[in-house]
Amino acid sequence: MDMHASMDMQAIVDEALSHAETYRGHGEVTDYIPALSKVDPNKLGIAVALRDGSTYVAGDADELFSIQSISKVFTLSLALQRVGPAIWNFVGKEPSGSPFNSIVQLEAEEGKPRNPLINPGAIVVCDQLIGDRNADAAVDELLQFLAERSGEDHIRIDEQVALSESQYGFLNRSLANFVAAFGNIKNPVEEVLSVYFRQCSISMSCRQLARAALYLACDGTDCSTGDAIILPTRARRINALMLTCGHYDNSGDFAFRIGLPGKSGVGGGILTTVPGVGAVAVWSPGLNAAGTSLAGAMALEKLVESTGWSIFV
Amino acid sequence: MDMHASMDMQAIVDEALSHAETYRGHGEVTDYIPALSKVDPNKLGIAVALRDGSTYVAGDADELFSIQSISKVFTLSLALQRVGPAIWNFVGKEPSGSPFNSIVQLEAEEGKPRNPLINPGAIVVCDQLIGDRNADAAVDELLQFLAERSGEDHIRIDEQVALSESQYGFLNRSLANFVAAFGNIKNPVEEVLSVYFRQCSISMSCRQLARAALYLACDGTDCSTGDAIILPTRARRINALMLTCGHYDNSGDFAFRIGLPGKSGVGGGILTTVPGVGAVAVWSPGLNAAGTSLAGAMALEKLVESTGWSIFV
Amino acid sequence: MDMHASMDMQAIVDEALSHAETYRGHGEVTDYIPALSKVDPNKLGIAVALRDGSTYVAGDADELFSIQSISKVFTLSLALQRVGPAIWNFVGKEPSGSPFNSIVQLEAEEGKPRNPLINPGAIVVCDQLIGDRNADAAVDELLQFLAERSGEDHIRIDEQVALSESQYGFLNRSLANFVAAFGNIKNPVEEVLSVYFRQCSISMSCRQLARAALYLACDGTDCSTGDAIILPTRARRINALMLTCGHYDNSGDFAFRIGLPGKSGVGGGILTTVPGVGAVAVWSPGLNAAGTSLAGAMALEKLVESTGWSIFV
Amino acid sequence: MDMHASMDMQAIVDEALSHAETYRGHGEVTDYIPALSKVDPNKLGIAVALRDGSTYVAGDADELFSIQSISKVFTLSLALQRVGPAIWNFVGKEPSGSPFNSIVQLEAEEGKPRNPLINPGAIVVCDQLIGDRNADAAVDELLQFLAERSGEDHIRIDEQVALSESQYGFLNRSLANFVAAFGNIKNPVEEVLSVYFRQCSISMSCRQLARAALYLACDGTDCSTGDAIILPTRARRINALMLTCGHYDNSGDFAFRIGLPGKSGVGGGILTTVPGVGAVAVWSPGLNAAGTSLAGAMALEKLVESTGWSIFV
Repeated sequence: MDMHASMDMQAIVDEALSHAETYRGHGEVTDYIPALSKVDPNKLGIAVALRDGSTYVAGDADELFSIQSISKVFTLSLALQRVGPAIWNFVGKEPSGSPFNSIVQLEAEEGKPRNPLINPGAIVVCDQLIGDRNADAAVDELLQFLAERSGEDHIRIDEQVALSESQYGFLNRSLANFVAAFGNIKNPVEEVLSVYFRQCSISMSCRQLARAALYLACDGTDCSTGDAIILPTRARRINALMLTCGHYDNSGDFAFRIGLPGKSGVGGGILTTVPGVGAVAVWSPGLNAAGTSLAGAMALEKLVESTGWSIFV
Repeated sequence: MDMHASMDMQAIVDEALSHAETYRGHGEVTDYIPALSKVDPNKLGIAVALRDGSTYVAGDADELFSIQSISKVFTLSLALQRVGPAIWNFVGKEPSGSPFNSIVQLEAEEGKPRNPLINPGAIVVCDQLIGDRNADAAVDELLQFLAERSGEDHIRIDEQVALSESQYGFLNRSLANFVAAFGNIKNPVEEVLSVYFRQCSISMSCRQLARAALYLACDGTDCSTGDAIILPTRARRINALMLTCGHYDNSGDFAFRIGLPGKSGVGGGILTTVPGVGAVAVWSPGLNAAGTSLAGAMALEKLVESTGWSIFV
Repeated sequence: MDMHASMDMQAIVDEALSHAETYRGHGEVTDYIPALSKVDPNKLGIAVALRDGSTYVAGDADELFSIQSISKVFTLSLALQRVGPAIWNFVGKEPSGSPFNSIVQLEAEEGKPRNPLINPGAIVVCDQLIGDRNADAAVDELLQFLAERSGEDHIRIDEQVALSESQYGFLNRSLANFVAAFGNIKNPVEEVLSVYFRQCSISMSCRQLARAALYLACDGTDCSTGDAIILPTRARRINALMLTCGHYDNSGDFAFRIGLPGKSGVGGGILTTVPGVGAVAVWSPGLNAAGTSLAGAMALEKLVESTGWSIFV
Repeated sequence: MDMHASMDMQAIVDEALSHAETYRGHGEVTDYIPALSKVDPNKLGIAVALRDGSTYVAGDADELFSIQSISKVFTLSLALQRVGPAIWNFVGKEPSGSPFNSIVQLEAEEGKPRNPLINPGAIVVCDQLIGDRNADAAVDELLQFLAERSGEDHIRIDEQVALSESQYGFLNRSLANFVAAFGNIKNPVEEVLSVYFRQCSISMSCRQLARAALYLACDGTDCSTGDAIILPTRARRINALMLTCGHYDNSGDFAFRIGLPGKSGVGGGILTTVPGVGAVAVWSPGLNAAGTSLAGAMALEKLVESTGWSIFV
């Protein structure tokens, strides 16, 4: 990408942010835990990281926020590397057609969650990531991976959010115990939940997230060095899962409108990958009914319109 | 694509067929209607149509078979052009996470089918395609469209299959009446079903199907002439729907394994689009539990492995 | 029961009606078919038929109304006598916990309706009642049975209601086809529906209904003559089914409040049996959310309070 | 009841036991917790307590067993007296049509369990029974009530069973947290579960159970002294709930076959009330698919056949 293209990219990113301005502050800030309900609803940021190492940002792109369920993409990458395809014995690969926390399918399907990007599936992935280690070891591995991938010294957990997650985590505790009732969790439930609650409480910025996810756009390699991070087939498959399952019962609409693999978090972040090109992270706390950032999705829609990055063209 | 590439493509297509040989005759031939249960389970064909107009085939690629639910992609294209975005008032865009004929979600969602590629959704699309015309006019439009797109003089309905569809169509008749009970079908139920049963009974070959679908790979245009067939955004969105919803509760797995927008039919056909590149159709009657051709999917998996055509790379 | 008691009974019946006055006209008159939506919402009647042959009435107890689902009790009696316990291969005996027309359980339970008092169950009973006869023969048997039991020359179908039932019967047509898809209906679907729609369209008065149901209070015999009408065990079991399943997802509440086997109809009628004592029919068209007559249930509640007829004392 | 009748009753009880002999050891002993799976499957006992104070027993009627869910009837009695009708704001009165531990309806109905006799409903009742006290106070009240009603000095909890219940109680823990997520439990979840697990672990004999439940047959009074134990309407309503909901998704079949209000426990006990007459308890550990004692139900069926105690005659 030459200088000219670079300048265009900054303009495109600015324009995407500007297009989303109308929706700044719209939607509902999550209130399922007190620690998140106090976030300023007017935050809006975007970061595009390209495979050549360049990054383009606009708005609150360097402010830390609670990445929440976006973490599921990284935990899945690490667990897949650790466990291999055996992980699919414990969690499926199909869209659920249900909200993020639905327990209905779990009963019909005997405790095997539909996919790793809904809450019970991510809880199973946490259990697999722990393996025969303990919760702290799993969390440390995840934080170190995120630091390396994003080029930071440290990635941190917001301990106040983590505490709030556990304290008000009735639904996730219910889901975890439900899965455990079918023998589909190997470690003690509270040990597994401690990883789950902490991964949801990681604080990162749009810039950090976009850079951290670049390996998914470069077929599993470090885009700069070419070093293998995860197997190419796994990178493709994580992209496929993000496309079909990344936004709960809003996944179809996201694919329809934006046409990129993505993962939303109730903190207002959305991470998308552009296979072969780069990664994009947006953040704005106001959510639609399915828990996807309203202004964030608008920014992405504009960005894709300008760049033609839809994987369906 | 030069001569060298062309030769490669033929080799790749042959290799994909050869890879699928092991699965020839495996799986279950559909038996939901007598007329389809008698198909030779050992049929196996593949056709690749590229945007430059070239076509590569192997096996039983020129034999006509019942395209069944693959027709839903074309009916949707026509109905979208006819009705515009208003169609989404009557049918959703989300994966259902359920089998093709599930009625459960319909009850919870008050007669609005999850997406246009499951049976009740396609029935709603047929109703919209009829509009203020009659069933025959809608079917004629569809057949003419398929003939034009595939470069044939005529595309025909297998009347014996159509009769069988109607005679044994208890479940589809149930779904249609259920949707009608919520006022979500405007024409008489039997009129709408007559379009639905006939579209499922269309006979086409792999070659015809692949060529017919090329407009979805060329952003809605005729790849040769550049003429607009459907709006570019609609082509993208149909691709997105095929990716997320094209194989019922096997859609996630198909995206995971093959990484291309696709639509299966219980006649054993699978149609996939390769955005920017072309379209592929395979056929082999033995099905997996979700109604997707077993050998057909294996051929596609090999083809994508050889060509790197996954949209997730 | 001596003269004194008889006088008491009339007073009790009057008082029950008077207690229900407050609710006269409350609730919603059914509007699922036009022919029923025009009924005067202010009608209110009650009839008590005792095993000694005496009958006590108040209000609009001699006015004919559409008995709707109350007919299911009588069709079941006849089908049980015709088919015997084999009928339980086609329909269950459990409360559904769902509305009268729910299709969800049918899918999970592969076309075997939960019980004979919800719509799909009653449709299966109609099919069994037809057996190797035709629809007219089944309807004739039912009408003759009702005439004999109620001591009338003729019981008639309201043909306008029957037509309306069929014309707007999308949901019942959906349910019937759904059951047929699982092979659980033997006769042609429309033949079966023609019995179902006609049984729902029978016109009877409270007095006629209460007298017609006396055999269920006399352990299956004609209370006056002692002649066997149905087997004693079957009478008990029909009472049990009415108690557990007679009011759809309101059955528990009805048992809780009134404590008698009962069956509601959306025409506003409720039939209850008082084992060993007699039968009671009430009618008032305004319905609660579960389709049970609001004023009718209030009258029954008062009647049971005065008489101590609850089977749970 | 004179001497002659008394002698008959002993013969009837013996005959009921003898009739059930064929099923002794049939069915599955519960294995959901290790502590219960070791019970001798060949145990079989029956006790009939009549309102005149007489008791008739046969087989292992004086052996203590884990009463499990039968305890729900007594906890409900106490909670109703404590809280009054306000309890119905937190739990419903309808049959669930689902297994005892189903979580599906809880999601659709936003954390309000269908009835107090399924697990989540009983958990809510435990919470209400605690009120502003602590778990121990609630358990003490329950044990004292059972001792008084059964005429024993002490009724005890099997601490090993209680420990096992908690240790393997993933599903109940899931249900409790699920209900808590909707704000429908007021006390800390583990406090509530500690009452629930302990009430399930109470050990009683058939004789003790039958005597303890007599107040439900005497319209809420102590049959001997006439003292009010619970309000008459509440006794009737508990009987109604036992009839419609006492055996989970087997409630309809139990009402159909036996025709008495009853409550089963997975320890193999069944408690039934005979309004106006007395109470019956049976015990045999082998269960049918719905968790009801197989031989126990056979004994009851014979007993009702001999005595004509069905409430539907």
